[in-house]
Amino acid sequence: MHTDSQTTRILGIDPGSRITGYGIIEQGPKGCRYIASGSIRVKADYFPDRLKQIFDSVREIVDLYHPEQMAIEQVFMHKNADSALKLGQARGAAICAVQTAGLPVFEYAARQVKQALVGKGNAEKTQVQHMVKILLGIQGELQIDASDALGLCLCHSHYRQTALRIERSLAR
Amino acid sequence: MHTDSQTTRILGIDPGSRITGYGIIEQGPKGCRYIASGSIRVKADYFPDRLKQIFDSVREIVDLYHPEQMAIEQVFMHKNADSALKLGQARGAAICAVQTAGLPVFEYAARQVKQALVGKGNAEKTQVQHMVKILLGIQGELQIDASDALGLCLCHSHYRQTALRIERSLAR
Repeated sequence: MHTDSQTTRILGIDPGSRITGYGIIEQGPKGCRYIASGSIRVKADYFPDRLKQIFDSVREIVDLYHPEQMAIEQVFMHKNADSALKLGQARGAAICAVQTAGLPVFEYAARQVKQALVGKGNAEKTQVQHMVKILLGIQGELQIDASDALGLCLCHSHYRQTALRIERSLAR
Repeated sequence: MHTDSQTTRILGIDPGSRITGYGIIEQGPKGCRYIASGSIRVKADYFPDRLKQIFDSVREIVDLYHPEQMAIEQVFMHKNADSALKLGQARGAAICAVQTAGLPVFEYAARQVKQALVGKGNAEKTQVQHMVKILLGIQGELQIDASDALGLCLCHSHYRQTALRIERSLAR
């Protein structure tokens, strides 16, 4: 189990009704370190069972890696109402899973993730993926769902660092 | 706590991002009996906190009334993608709450509820509300969210009864 008070473990979740990406990084005084990433694939035909699989899998990830904060994409609008409904349910299941484990939830718009990682709010997804790999020193292939989740972790660590810096300068 | 093996307690949930209606009935050999109903009103500004309030409140209802099965409206489509996303998350939170308590989840389309209670798949909401009050002997006012949740309970008890009847006739 992770015990160093100087570091913070961040869980990023990119929910979906079939594939939910996840990533865990550790933010410390020397920067961010990759811990794990992957995707939860749910296959149940019955939709409520899929939600349970997402809930249980996210809880397992929390129990395994002991993250202390969670970052998730803030979705404002969705093109299709039917897919928005499915995405919403998956998102609800993932958020409830981390909240029942006591983790605070931080939401970031896709624009914020792109801005934090690439410096451009309208950057391409592949550019974000490229920066995730560089910033975390990941070699080889990285699945898009896992990469999106790690992007959320890095975005949160960026905002956190800025907030901590302001706090410290005000305390002086 | 409810112990009679001849009766089954059914929880109906009508989820929403601001108001979630709930109802509990007891189905026994002599028909259905009203147990409780009401609505969960969530007020948190931060949306993930609202989901936690829904999850926790549904769990409290389950712990208080000990229902054994849960019925929820099956939503196929929604007019507006933004509200579909919010509804989806509330629905995901409610479903995860009852599933973590071990209850099986049954989904019914609005059309099925109307057909079971009024005999017409395109009946008005007020007709459903009227039948809920008659079938459960409720006098006085009944909020629409609670009424919709009780309608789901009664629809489930109707389908359950039919399934049990078929089972018994096949066993003869």
